[in-house]
Amino acid sequence: MAAPLRAPITDLREGTCTVREDTAHYLTRVLRLAVGATFVAFDPATAREADAAIASIEGGVTLHVSTLRPARVVAPRPLTFVQGLAKGDKCDAVVRDATELGATCVIVAECARSVVQLQGARRTSRLERWTRIAHEAARQCGRADPPRIELLPWAEAVSTIDEAARRFCLHVHEALPLGPLLLEAVQTEGAPIAFAAGPEGGLTAEEVALAVGRGWQCVSLGSLVLRTETAAAAVLGAVRVLES
Amino acid sequence: MAAPLRAPITDLREGTCTVREDTAHYLTRVLRLAVGATFVAFDPATAREADAAIASIEGGVTLHVSTLRPARVVAPRPLTFVQGLAKGDKCDAVVRDATELGATCVIVAECARSVVQLQGARRTSRLERWTRIAHEAARQCGRADPPRIELLPWAEAVSTIDEAARRFCLHVHEALPLGPLLLEAVQTEGAPIAFAAGPEGGLTAEEVALAVGRGWQCVSLGSLVLRTETAAAAVLGAVRVLES
Repeated sequence: MAAPLRAPITDLREGTCTVREDTAHYLTRVLRLAVGATFVAFDPATAREADAAIASIEGGVTLHVSTLRPARVVAPRPLTFVQGLAKGDKCDAVVRDATELGATCVIVAECARSVVQLQGARRTSRLERWTRIAHEAARQCGRADPPRIELLPWAEAVSTIDEAARRFCLHVHEALPLGPLLLEAVQTEGAPIAFAAGPEGGLTAEEVALAVGRGWQCVSLGSLVLRTETAAAAVLGAVRVLES
Repeated sequence: MAAPLRAPITDLREGTCTVREDTAHYLTRVLRLAVGATFVAFDPATAREADAAIASIEGGVTLHVSTLRPARVVAPRPLTFVQGLAKGDKCDAVVRDATELGATCVIVAECARSVVQLQGARRTSRLERWTRIAHEAARQCGRADPPRIELLPWAEAVSTIDEAARRFCLHVHEALPLGPLLLEAVQTEGAPIAFAAGPEGGLTAEEVALAVGRGWQCVSLGSLVLRTETAAAAVLGAVRVLES
């Protein structure tokens, strides 16, 4: 069965409504919907959705929206990725990938080896930027529930995760393989899972010890060294494939 | 057990040798090795490696290299990713990620919906570029065997894979979930696996039919729509995690 087209509609309400200009462009130019075409309209802010049809296109796009229901495409389990604050646009890439791959929370963690220092206004603007990227990625992949984005010191980041979650700290010098542990963790439907990874320079021994003290398990992805961004996509991709 | 440090050395030979300037920089600045430090030296061109020690640093870096052996860190199974030729630097990202995640072959496939057309000299230069990216990524992640890179029309790409390989075609409108099939496929150690994905605009019905006719199985990664680059990292990441 082909999955129905999904499009985000802000302030989604039952009945007839005219959509904003950017949404109109998305519906008619990107999705190429004509009058009469049907799709699933979802509201990223409320995680509700409805069947919708294009009513008219002349002078703005108008929709017929049927009864709202809780959105169907939401992440299947609480899934957190803690990413050590990295240089350049690496964290942007991690937020985008994590959103597409079903993360419900991305925490950017300030680590001892984080080269970037975010203070004051830069802190706020960076957090806003990541939140915007998450919303945009959720829209593009058809998710009704963009992940929550936080920026915390490493010690807080690893302490803030639900104790019921299986928590895996990716560490290059650790030999316990992730595969069998993750397979076991995904068996329980809806059970929370969390991953943590350091910045480019890796985690310090103290940071690893702190996570372990908080109940995180150190795991390895094998002998090849992965870039920061690749590690996030690999482990979240594994969860997604195993859940499919 | 901590994995030993690995560094690529061109023209690796037993005995005492002076390394090139870029390698010297990598050893002393990136890996921060001092005189007496030991590491595994590997030659990406020959897939051979040896235990090595820094003999001196003054006026160029000199190594003591012990007996060469076949490199130990190689991809554990034949693993092919066929990527529909996509716009911009998307294929660069796929080649880089696939190399880190253990692919042994990346085929960029020219598809009906590929926007880019590569003819003559551009074709050669793009293929050289991807090959260079694969070699660089292999070096950085410590792999002794960079993947083979090819550029072929879709019909050839899906026909060229070993018939013994489990072949999965990622398709957004297909409901058969990849998870259980992939779990079964990775059980057989060393057995070849291949994935194929279309360009941004997706595969045409004819291209999907052609792959299916050649023994590929259409599979889904769930209801969220993944970008081209994310799909590659997700499925190859899943193989890597399951093999870990």
